[in-house]
Amino acid sequence: MRALHLPSLEIVDRPDPAPGPGQLLVQVHAAGLNRADLSQRAGHYPAPPGWPQDIPGLEYAGEVIATGPGTTYFAPGERVMGLVGGGAMAERLVVHQREAMAIPDGMTMPEAAAIPEAFLTAWDAIVRQGGGHGGHRVLMHAIGSGVGTAAAQLAPILGLTLIGTSRTAEKLDRCRALGMAHGVLTTEADWPAQVGAPVDVIVDTLGGSYLAQNLALLAPRGRLVVLGLMAGRSADGVDLGLVLRHRLQVIGTAMRSRGTEERGVLLEAFTQEILPHFGRGLLRPIVETVRPMTDAAAAYDLLASNRTFGKVVLAWDAAASPAPA
Amino acid sequence: MRALHLPSLEIVDRPDPAPGPGQLLVQVHAAGLNRADLSQRAGHYPAPPGWPQDIPGLEYAGEVIATGPGTTYFAPGERVMGLVGGGAMAERLVVHQREAMAIPDGMTMPEAAAIPEAFLTAWDAIVRQGGGHGGHRVLMHAIGSGVGTAAAQLAPILGLTLIGTSRTAEKLDRCRALGMAHGVLTTEADWPAQVGAPVDVIVDTLGGSYLAQNLALLAPRGRLVVLGLMAGRSADGVDLGLVLRHRLQVIGTAMRSRGTEERGVLLEAFTQEILPHFGRGLLRPIVETVRPMTDAAAAYDLLASNRTFGKVVLAWDAAASPAPA
Repeated sequence: MRALHLPSLEIVDRPDPAPGPGQLLVQVHAAGLNRADLSQRAGHYPAPPGWPQDIPGLEYAGEVIATGPGTTYFAPGERVMGLVGGGAMAERLVVHQREAMAIPDGMTMPEAAAIPEAFLTAWDAIVRQGGGHGGHRVLMHAIGSGVGTAAAQLAPILGLTLIGTSRTAEKLDRCRALGMAHGVLTTEADWPAQVGAPVDVIVDTLGGSYLAQNLALLAPRGRLVVLGLMAGRSADGVDLGLVLRHRLQVIGTAMRSRGTEERGVLLEAFTQEILPHFGRGLLRPIVETVRPMTDAAAAYDLLASNRTFGKVVLAWDAAASPAPA
Repeated sequence: MRALHLPSLEIVDRPDPAPGPGQLLVQVHAAGLNRADLSQRAGHYPAPPGWPQDIPGLEYAGEVIATGPGTTYFAPGERVMGLVGGGAMAERLVVHQREAMAIPDGMTMPEAAAIPEAFLTAWDAIVRQGGGHGGHRVLMHAIGSGVGTAAAQLAPILGLTLIGTSRTAEKLDRCRALGMAHGVLTTEADWPAQVGAPVDVIVDTLGGSYLAQNLALLAPRGRLVVLGLMAGRSADGVDLGLVLRHRLQVIGTAMRSRGTEERGVLLEAFTQEILPHFGRGLLRPIVETVRPMTDAAAAYDLLASNRTFGKVVLAWDAAASPAPA
């Protein structure tokens, strides 16, 4: 099979993997690109044990072409998507059946490949890690990202008031159209004041220098869910008095380091509670562009530019799968 | 009634409070002293709304002498102890019936007054906030405190390996005798190395400059429960990369700001799961000294000296209730 190779992102030949007990062999059609892929390419985020170390890709959409012994969830010919610890940017991928979800009818492979990381991460961060529920005010940074555009659409479904931040006014406008209640430009010095009343949950992809401001924006018993560190990993001036007095929580979370069991539990809950909304037209993946795997390096550069809105997707047959409008 | 007055700690006269629906009027015999009382006296920790602002005291032991309408949990003549938001250092106190627990048979009033804050805080921090359970390694700072000496005794009951820190070797020795597995002197520069393997839960009363070291001691998915800030409220050099990679949680917690409902749920769970161990002799309050209410100022100074082991208790009839051995 063909596969992308790290760090060059050139196409290399690799032996086909074989499915073991409870596993699926998937013919991958498309794979969403994530900031974690950029970090891994730069040498900062190695794959967890048991996953390919030199093939990137954390989410996939494709077709089951073989199954291992004792597999009951899916059969050959079915279309599946899901999260993996690495290796999705290859023509074939072995996943555990619990790490796969059925692709909704009528959805293209590149669209499906834009769902798992964005929507699972947003939902897990807001609801399962952050404890967000109807009536809550939720602040999400970098709202124009894949995760952000997923959160904007999830907010009305969950009954949340979502406040999003961005450095680009146009991204805020587009997220309002998706379901975000209120947008804040972090390029303005007084952006914390523009958030308004304290928030119950913050989903943060910035980290570093934003930590102190985030804590000050939380309501009593509020939770700050840390997903990323685009603004740096070290934080100073952290007010533990505020953490104590308001009983705040800071929660670090990541999809990649989870084991099959934990990922399986998450996917099953998501399949029941959120996936049906795609079929009803209430949710849709936001895809900036679909690029051929052979143009992976350019796609990585595009994501790094911060000029994208929603997801960048790589596809083995990109010409046959044009980007959705 | 007589009551201690803030900030002077002189005895003043106050009108007796009257119990409302679901409330108990308690004749207070003894009240445990806490660091929060010291903070409140210094003007840093005002009582939450609905509690006396100028009478200190966060825990009590006494006798029910009257009940309000609709009270079913306790009757006059019963001995009760519990947590309040303030006002325990007075001869009479009104509490909601859900904020009271029965005092175990055979226990003196000063002993009972040493239980609620120490044991509820330790148990809540380790188990309910920290998610600690059998097989976990738990680190607790300031192990010679009331909360620490409670934790040392809870550890074997919960099946936890408790590592305690102190600046005094003698306090570590005494906590080993109570149930602590391993003691670490924080006066030694390499104290983090002496903790040994990573820990699953840290209960921290130090805050400030200890935050970075605490985070580095946590195992993946570990939880740091912040109870106090004896080493300062501001923290620098916080490594959010570690928080993210190990999926750590930092959880601020406080008993005082909780409402009656939340406190009631906690007391009921504690009454079922932990209180019976006092009757079996597996748990006992550790009391440094019992002082008369008229010597409150000296008792406050004693607690501030950090030379105490376990609890300092104030009693209205201290002469009739000698300190336990």
